[in-house]
Order: sequence, then structure tokens, then C-alpha cells
Amino acid sequence: MKCRRCKKPAVIKLPRHNTAYCGFCFQFYVYEQVRRALSEHKMLQKKEPVLVAVSGGKDSLALWDILTKLGYHAVGLHLNLGIGSYSETSQSKVEAFARTRNLELITHAYQEAYGLGIVEIARETARPACSACGTMKRYHFNRIAREKGFAVVATGHNLDDEASRLLGNVLQWQESYLQKQSPALAAEDGKWARKVRPLYRLTEREIAAYTVISRIDYIIEECPMSKGAKMFLYKEMLNQLEETSPGTKHQFYLGYLQKKEQIFSPQEKDKQCCKVCGQPTRGTICSYCRLMERVAT
Amino acid sequence: MKCRRCKKPAVIKLPRHNTAYCGFCFQFYVYEQVRRALSEHKMLQKKEPVLVAVSGGKDSLALWDILTKLGYHAVGLHLNLGIGSYSETSQSKVEAFARTRNLELITHAYQEAYGLGIVEIARETARPACSACGTMKRYHFNRIAREKGFAVVATGHNLDDEASRLLGNVLQWQESYLQKQSPALAAEDGKWARKVRPLYRLTEREIAAYTVISRIDYIIEECPMSKGAKMFLYKEMLNQLEETSPGTKHQFYLGYLQKKEQIFSPQEKDKQCCKVCGQPTRGTICSYCRLMERVAT
Repeated sequence: MKCRRCKKPAVIKLPRHNTAYCGFCFQFYVYEQVRRALSEHKMLQKKEPVLVAVSGGKDSLALWDILTKLGYHAVGLHLNLGIGSYSETSQSKVEAFARTRNLELITHAYQEAYGLGIVEIARETARPACSACGTMKRYHFNRIAREKGFAVVATGHNLDDEASRLLGNVLQWQESYLQKQSPALAAEDGKWARKVRPLYRLTEREIAAYTVISRIDYIIEECPMSKGAKMFLYKEMLNQLEETSPGTKHQFYLGYLQKKEQIFSPQEKDKQCCKVCGQPTRGTICSYCRLMERVAT
Repeated sequence: MKCRRCKKPAVIKLPRHNTAYCGFCFQFYVYEQVRRALSEHKMLQKKEPVLVAVSGGKDSLALWDILTKLGYHAVGLHLNLGIGSYSETSQSKVEAFARTRNLELITHAYQEAYGLGIVEIARETARPACSACGTMKRYHFNRIAREKGFAVVATGHNLDDEASRLLGNVLQWQESYLQKQSPALAAEDGKWARKVRPLYRLTEREIAAYTVISRIDYIIEECPMSKGAKMFLYKEMLNQLEETSPGTKHQFYLGYLQKKEQIFSPQEKDKQCCKVCGQPTRGTICSYCRLMERVAT
């Protein structure tokens, strides 16, 4: 098969687009998908500085790389979760990436801030690790973006992440999430950062290929706390469908984005400000502050 | 494990209900699920005669058996699709079932009516076989119910069928189907029969167990035209999820039934009467009559 763009031999097939690219032109395909995501959802204003949440995995480092190449002022934010050697390796990958490209990086370590890592925080509060981790990340992304003056935080969620999350929301009919899942969430109260996911048009496999071609060194190991997470099962299911019907994930998630307002009844927005920290919450005290109450007691 | 009802040794486990039954008591569980389905959706009025669509497979014969045991006047309707030995075996299983139980059976053979089986009809009209078959069945269920004076047609769709159909509708965001999928569809214009699916609370595996315990002899072979159908892939996916999270299918489909009016925006109802045959259709001529035009030309 030949590269769609330059007609040289192709190295990566994209069955869902019924096409293929050589390594060089595949990078243009990736930039084009990210440009479309940014423009269709008005994710970033030109020259607006953006805080990129970087775990050290392939998606977040690819995102940082792409945004930088597209000319954005992208500053990295790494949260060190304090999960032994996994977190040490993650941070060192992020630091090496920033150093070799001369990029600005902000780090925050739970161990230093709380004297505890995420595993201990989850244990002390009797919360599932992934759930406590999500709460903590949301809080610190908001807090640090505000303190450092960023109006937008970008995360590396890809098409597989978004499609599997949507599948989970559908299988359990999580009505409060079904209308609001979006690759671009508006700022809450104008005070807190917007959240954007510029990789939502690219699959996990495509991003993995991009990191190889672009020589991005990342931590391959998955987080040891995420083992057995349902999300992996949903991804696996969608991959099985993708194999027999290329484009299933794309159609499912992008079809959702296109039709959700027409399909779903509007849900009430009942967000308030947390009485302790002021961040957005549905109750009176946000889940982060409730978590912290239990850590402290 | 002991039987939940009589405490004798159990022979069938139901992980999604976290329980188990002996063979005898399992039948009561099955009757109870069907009774609940009938009553929650007001499917049948007492002593109302019901036309049961029977293919010769386990679900439809189990349904006929159960409705009869619950005291309903259930008359069988078998459509012989004219698919060689598969259809011959199917019809003979249905006839044997009716004969040994002294039940009334109506049969209609495509080969006699059209001089063609469903395979030839699909080929002549360039339609996928399952799609042409669905159109034909819908038409004849309506026609025969009306001619014979039945106000309701029951089909053997089980929980796996309904959950996998719903999954397909969601993955492709078929908005016109997303609000109307239901185990009990009202009569169109008051002229055509209501459609009910009293087995929707029971899984395929539970119905298979019921047919063994109740000594129902059915055609095990799947329709040879359905090979590779996406529905099998969706069922397989849901079965994988069910294994790690018992109750997934139940929660997905019954959750949908419970929440669909609150989750989905109402869709316009734009059904009209077909100008040729008078049956309900979205256009001016129904899909059956359009199919027949192409068979005739």
C-alpha cells in the first residue's frame, strides 16, 4: 500500500479512514486531527498559554509535543502520585522530555504535600484508588491552573478513552454524565480553567505510532493501581468491534458529539462552589475536601 | 449451593441475582419473571387470545409453553422461510410441539405464497437476508393477526436479544429507535396488533436451561443466513462483561426501560398507512410493499 499523501511505501494503515501513510506524512495526519479538534471545539485561542497535564505516558507526552509543534505555549504539569518506582519513572520521563525540548514544567508531589501517596490516601479514606486519584487530579489541575494564571488545562485523553468512558456511561445509564461528556468543558463560574482534550480524534494505536515516529520516550507500564479497571474491558470490547467494523469507535464517539443535543433531554446544571475551597461541586463541599477531611481524621 | 426456594441441592446458578435453584423451582422463577413482564407492561389482558410467533428455536417454543402454562389461549404462528432443510426441521419441531400439547398452529410458507424462499427474495431484491426477513415477518405477523382476529402478537425475544439490539442502536446512535425500543409496542392506529416480548427479563442461558428442564425439543442450529451478523458480536461482548460483572445486561436493558423517558428527548411520531397494504409505515409505501415491487419486476 502507498502513502496517501506522498505515494511512497506506507508504514501505517488506518482502516477506519480506509487509507495509509508513510511515517513522515503520518505526522501531518496527526497534526491535522489535532488542529480539527482544536478548531471544531474552539479549544484554544491563538497564543493562549495552556497547561498540559503530563503523566509520563504516551498520550500526554504526545499531546505536549504536538501542541508545542503547532506553536502553542504549552507548559507541563506533572502530579507525582507517590506510587513507588512507577511514579519515579513517570516523573523522570516527563523531566527528560521537558529538558531535551527546553520546555517549562511544573511538578507537584503528593508525598511532599500530604506525607502520603495516592495509595495511602485511597486506603485511609476507604475509596477505590482510581476514584480518589480522579478527585485529587481534578482539584490540583484547577488549583494550579488558577494559581499560575492558566485559563485552560489540556489532557491527553484519546478516542479510545472517550469512547470507552461513553460506553461505561451508557451501560450504566449515568444520565448526569450522558449529556455533558465533551472534549471541551467550559470554565466553571469563569473562575476555574476550561478543560480540553485535543487528542479525542486519534486512537490509542495512532498515538502509540506517533510516539515511535516522533521518538518520544514514555513510561510504557500502566499504573499498577488501575489493574482490573472496567475501562480496560470496555476498551477491549471496542477494539474487538473495531477489528470487524473499522470506524466503530469513531462513529460511536463522534456520532455522540454530533447528535447528543438532539438525542438527550437537557439535564439541570446544579453546580455550586465548595464552601471550603471554592471549587465547583454539586453538593456544598467538594469531593476533594471531603476526601481531605477523612485523611485528616 | 442450595435452592433458594426449597433448600434442596441447586442445579442452576443465577449470578446476577446472587442465587441458585433446583430444576423444579427454577421453573417457578421463570414463570415469575414472565408474570412480572406481562404485568409491568400490561402486555396481555386476562383470557385475551394471543398469537405467538414460533420459529422452532428455544425462545419461541419456551414462550409458547410458558404462556400456555400460565393459562393464556396462545395460538402458534409459524412462517416457513423456505431455507432448505433448516426450514423443514424448524417446521417439524414446531408441529411436533403443537401436536404433543394439542395446541392450535397456523403456518404460512413463503415458497407456497411467492414461489420463492427468503434467500431468493433477498437475492432478487438485493437486500441483506436478515433485513428482508425482518420486513417480511413484520408484514405477515400484522396481516395474519388481523385476518385471524388477534389483537396481540408475542415474540420470544430474550434479555440478550434486547440488550444487544440496544447496544447496536447506541453504538450507531440510531436516534429514531433509541426512544421507542420496548418490550410492549402499542397497536398502530388501533387496527394492527400490539407486539409484546414477555421473555425480556430472562437471559438466553436461562431460557436454554428452562427448555432442558421442561423437555422442550427445539432446533438448535442457528439460521444459516444469520452467520456473521453483528448481533452475535454484540451478544458476545455483553457476555464477556456479564462474566466479570454479573447483572450488566439486566442493568443495561432494564435501566434503559426505567430511565429512557427521562434521558432521551421525545422523537416525533410520523407513522402513516401504506398506500398499498394499509400497514403502518414511515413513508408512503411500506418496506414490504417496496420489497414486493422488486420481486415482481
